[in-house]
Amino acid sequence: MNTFGTLFRLTCFGESHGEALGGVIDGCPAGVLMDEAFVQAQLDRRRPGQSALTTARNEADKVQFLSGIFEGKTTGTPIGFVIYNTNQHSSDYANVKDAFRPSHADFTYTTKYGFRDYRGGGRSSARETACRVVAGAVAQLMLKQVGLDITIQAQIAEVGGSTQIEETILAAKAAGDTVGGIIACTITGVPAGWGEPVFDKLHAKLGAAMLSINAAKGFDYGMGFDGVSKRGSQVNDIFTTNQQGQVVTQTNFSGGIQGGISNGMPIYFRVAFKPVATLLQPQQTVNAQGESITLQVKGRHDACVLPRAVPIVESMAAMVLADAYLLQRNSKL
Amino acid sequence: MNTFGTLFRLTCFGESHGEALGGVIDGCPAGVLMDEAFVQAQLDRRRPGQSALTTARNEADKVQFLSGIFEGKTTGTPIGFVIYNTNQHSSDYANVKDAFRPSHADFTYTTKYGFRDYRGGGRSSARETACRVVAGAVAQLMLKQVGLDITIQAQIAEVGGSTQIEETILAAKAAGDTVGGIIACTITGVPAGWGEPVFDKLHAKLGAAMLSINAAKGFDYGMGFDGVSKRGSQVNDIFTTNQQGQVVTQTNFSGGIQGGISNGMPIYFRVAFKPVATLLQPQQTVNAQGESITLQVKGRHDACVLPRAVPIVESMAAMVLADAYLLQRNSKL
Amino acid sequence: MNTFGTLFRLTCFGESHGEALGGVIDGCPAGVLMDEAFVQAQLDRRRPGQSALTTARNEADKVQFLSGIFEGKTTGTPIGFVIYNTNQHSSDYANVKDAFRPSHADFTYTTKYGFRDYRGGGRSSARETACRVVAGAVAQLMLKQVGLDITIQAQIAEVGGSTQIEETILAAKAAGDTVGGIIACTITGVPAGWGEPVFDKLHAKLGAAMLSINAAKGFDYGMGFDGVSKRGSQVNDIFTTNQQGQVVTQTNFSGGIQGGISNGMPIYFRVAFKPVATLLQPQQTVNAQGESITLQVKGRHDACVLPRAVPIVESMAAMVLADAYLLQRNSKL
Amino acid sequence: MNTFGTLFRLTCFGESHGEALGGVIDGCPAGVLMDEAFVQAQLDRRRPGQSALTTARNEADKVQFLSGIFEGKTTGTPIGFVIYNTNQHSSDYANVKDAFRPSHADFTYTTKYGFRDYRGGGRSSARETACRVVAGAVAQLMLKQVGLDITIQAQIAEVGGSTQIEETILAAKAAGDTVGGIIACTITGVPAGWGEPVFDKLHAKLGAAMLSINAAKGFDYGMGFDGVSKRGSQVNDIFTTNQQGQVVTQTNFSGGIQGGISNGMPIYFRVAFKPVATLLQPQQTVNAQGESITLQVKGRHDACVLPRAVPIVESMAAMVLADAYLLQRNSKL
Repeated sequence: MNTFGTLFRLTCFGESHGEALGGVIDGCPAGVLMDEAFVQAQLDRRRPGQSALTTARNEADKVQFLSGIFEGKTTGTPIGFVIYNTNQHSSDYANVKDAFRPSHADFTYTTKYGFRDYRGGGRSSARETACRVVAGAVAQLMLKQVGLDITIQAQIAEVGGSTQIEETILAAKAAGDTVGGIIACTITGVPAGWGEPVFDKLHAKLGAAMLSINAAKGFDYGMGFDGVSKRGSQVNDIFTTNQQGQVVTQTNFSGGIQGGISNGMPIYFRVAFKPVATLLQPQQTVNAQGESITLQVKGRHDACVLPRAVPIVESMAAMVLADAYLLQRNSKL
Repeated sequence: MNTFGTLFRLTCFGESHGEALGGVIDGCPAGVLMDEAFVQAQLDRRRPGQSALTTARNEADKVQFLSGIFEGKTTGTPIGFVIYNTNQHSSDYANVKDAFRPSHADFTYTTKYGFRDYRGGGRSSARETACRVVAGAVAQLMLKQVGLDITIQAQIAEVGGSTQIEETILAAKAAGDTVGGIIACTITGVPAGWGEPVFDKLHAKLGAAMLSINAAKGFDYGMGFDGVSKRGSQVNDIFTTNQQGQVVTQTNFSGGIQGGISNGMPIYFRVAFKPVATLLQPQQTVNAQGESITLQVKGRHDACVLPRAVPIVESMAAMVLADAYLLQRNSKL
Repeated sequence: MNTFGTLFRLTCFGESHGEALGGVIDGCPAGVLMDEAFVQAQLDRRRPGQSALTTARNEADKVQFLSGIFEGKTTGTPIGFVIYNTNQHSSDYANVKDAFRPSHADFTYTTKYGFRDYRGGGRSSARETACRVVAGAVAQLMLKQVGLDITIQAQIAEVGGSTQIEETILAAKAAGDTVGGIIACTITGVPAGWGEPVFDKLHAKLGAAMLSINAAKGFDYGMGFDGVSKRGSQVNDIFTTNQQGQVVTQTNFSGGIQGGISNGMPIYFRVAFKPVATLLQPQQTVNAQGESITLQVKGRHDACVLPRAVPIVESMAAMVLADAYLLQRNSKL
Repeated sequence: MNTFGTLFRLTCFGESHGEALGGVIDGCPAGVLMDEAFVQAQLDRRRPGQSALTTARNEADKVQFLSGIFEGKTTGTPIGFVIYNTNQHSSDYANVKDAFRPSHADFTYTTKYGFRDYRGGGRSSARETACRVVAGAVAQLMLKQVGLDITIQAQIAEVGGSTQIEETILAAKAAGDTVGGIIACTITGVPAGWGEPVFDKLHAKLGAAMLSINAAKGFDYGMGFDGVSKRGSQVNDIFTTNQQGQVVTQTNFSGGIQGGISNGMPIYFRVAFKPVATLLQPQQTVNAQGESITLQVKGRHDACVLPRAVPIVESMAAMVLADAYLLQRNSKL
């Protein structure tokens, strides 16, 4: 259940305030030059404390590789890694021990498992996404080194219904409140032929990947939800040949994927994120005994997940593509 | 790649104009009373020729169960089934043999596999969804017989940007054109505790399931894309206890899922579908030789997928739930 | 649970006396020329009624392919197939309906599932192996057509502790009794580098495949059980180079696999089969009510499984190899 | 490829002389009291330096749990763990850097991956089995705490064709040589109904598990290879009822498994191990350049794997059983 991917696979573990997070990247071919500085740089993009927009928590997020790399290259055997938790303030969470925080996973985890690690959200904390960034960075290295010139570029499209990103987040933060928003991602350089028919369509894999990120509420690709009011004659992508004689489409309402398989055009999609559930305002809720309580959360929290979610979106996309690349090697004899 | 689910699994096969479609339902517990009439009735909801809104093709879509059922009950062993293709007009497709139809999978399949079964779209035809309906119906029977009172209700929310469903589809059809739309689905009766943390969140599974349906372009759940312009204080779901002493939420912006796990409130989501790619108008495209051609498709085609997609959405949801039900049996000791 | 393989996969279904057996072969690359006569010929090797050594039941075992093949070649999409049951005498089994036949699966199936399809052993009948032979034949076609000159040759090494195969089986049959034996299999032409370290060692996959065949009780490869009394200095395989400059071993106690990965030398292994459990003699047992009964089985039964198991052993080996071939394509960048 | 199990799963990583070994145990239900002292005690049984029979290497093998445990109990989320390598002498292996050691995995790994981590055998070292012991210990804790009274007892049956275990090993060691042998394992207390028909038969799972252990060459269960010379009338297990009214068998040639499913009787099996490939004698071989060389290995090595393999056999059996237990919970409605 904590494994992502079919051939290029991440199996991960770790709670927000446990000893460490970490994972195993399995299925990465031998011979990838491991640029650890690149991996760490990707992790640094995700960690908090980077700007006024994100929480002041200073999580070092230093990744240590434990296996699968020899003389600077992947060996084809599993790549184990850990990120030790070093700056956790578990006492911040003593007051939420018995509370079911609104729109958090406290109630559902307790119901499912009988009890929960309440420190910092435990496994439901977005802190687990650090492991996704590590694996996504390795996926990017692999894709680059097989000679593919793939770019994966995510950015915040809007927050709080506004394209004034910074102002909107700071205003919410000042009010002890939070905001949601949309991240848009564009991928170029994927050759035609990646993705599988039926259940494992490339966009279904991308969608599952994005929807598995904390606070994600929606996903669409190509014309997406905007296309539902269109007629086919407006949005069919006409095929033509370009100057190199390659088959391309004149428009790209399809978003680079047709019948679940890449067609060589840019892939683009959007991910909707809800406002962070942790508010610095008093909120009504109940505790584990069903008693009504008023919750006043303190501590260091993001007012908006989107700034830190950008590298996570890119990382999940990279893992989906790495997996699709390996799978399509076996499409033909 | 043609398998859906972890414990309750459908593995399916079949092309639009091949000998038959079919599949294997594996992992269904023993003892489910097999109501074959119910399964056939679900299939009948999907098949064309039901109303003025859908294609006049008369596909009998008669399911035959071949194994896994004895004395009217599932035996715990795999349930094999076939649906023979009986009314195919392959000659309708002779003129598209070499053409890459706009916004179809002709080009991507040919690139991926080196050649393709061009008759009626082959494996990329929505005809494969018949198998999903069979498995979804079995999933519904299983859920009902374990004593859960779960309802899964999908309906067309809008087509062509309008809630005038019938008029909009008929207008598009009259113009030899097609329209997209949105199907909304609500699920009630799911107990708290279903779904898995991290990658296999319940909504990520639902999203992957829906996005794998032909012509789907987007998925959101709960407040979804509408929530991106909200502040946390507006959309946090406050916990309270109801008259039975159960923990419930006052609002349901979460859509019945928190941290990837059901919370006992109704689950609701939307699926965006693009307009059907097959138009009864001339279109420019290229053929397999890269030559520019004008395509004039004839035959019997839907002007809008949504009327027939309603039972498919319900079926995919049922399979996701059946799988989540079996998985959560092992959450606790 | 009824799926075999990681990339080259068979998912199968069917009971001995149900409507049909069948399966889905998924993951076979596009472009394999489908020699249906070869597949049928392999099936014919398995079916009963071939000689005095096997049961007189005349099972036609005619395979019908339903999908995944177009213009004589695999398309890369799943290959569905069925084998209808045409000559079943279910009434032969009326007297075993409530009986737990000794060393059969009647008791364990009933305990596990609450009831069972008692006709001819249902899913536990060796009749399901027909599907394995179909998939194994497709695997052999694939391996041949990628230009590998692999031979897979199984044969009966001994029955009843004797190399007098025919005499021993006929003597047991005349006594209304049955005998076990050993099938030995040799595979040549597998290049070095197939198989995975740790859990998915090539011999562990072969072992699981062989042990899953009905009546199998043991598996060893290379020097196997005979090697346990040897010293390392007697059985280490010394590396040398042959006239073509290739690294080979002077001896082959390893059985062509070292560290779980093929080394280019011939692979050989043995499979131990127990005597058939169905005797034509009266036997004591209990029925579902726990009452002591005397069982007198009638009907048409093999006195020894080995003659018919030879093509099954070869088929399972072919599936393991096809899977290993596809997996090792991704070992290196 | 480095994942074992369907529901109770170990994904592991690590090389003999890398930074650390470790793994992720996923699918363990919440609520298991984590007896870390028991886990460490099991690990201690496997580590070298325990007696005159095993290598003098002193590997501390201290397991550290990093996640999935809170307030002494499993939380239902993945259990990450590491075992740091602390006493490695990589310089011992400088002289084998380019050599293909006879009957080792040096040649096959180099062929498969293009290069290899030559220090101490890298991933092919039996050192990886430490992770199996950790997961096996957790599996045993889980089985015990669901109220099942299961015992798993492995022991050395013979080495070098002799039941004089200690003398035979010491004699081989004195000669700079090594010996193989057989480990026998008996499991009591498994209820009837565990295991799956067809491919995932309980003994096929046990066989794959045992054959995946380093140096394993064979597996049989019940009467195993000894049964091949018997007639059915000699070895059929007659059903009867015991004093508690339970259905039992008078004999147990089946080894507690019928049709791939446990029948409640003791399960027993044997595993054949070859002599250790590392000899302290000069051996001929070739190097990576194909040149003939004489290899003289030094360092600290076992003369026989069996003493240390006993807890590994038990651990793999425990994992198979834990998985079978979770799977069979869903056999019936």
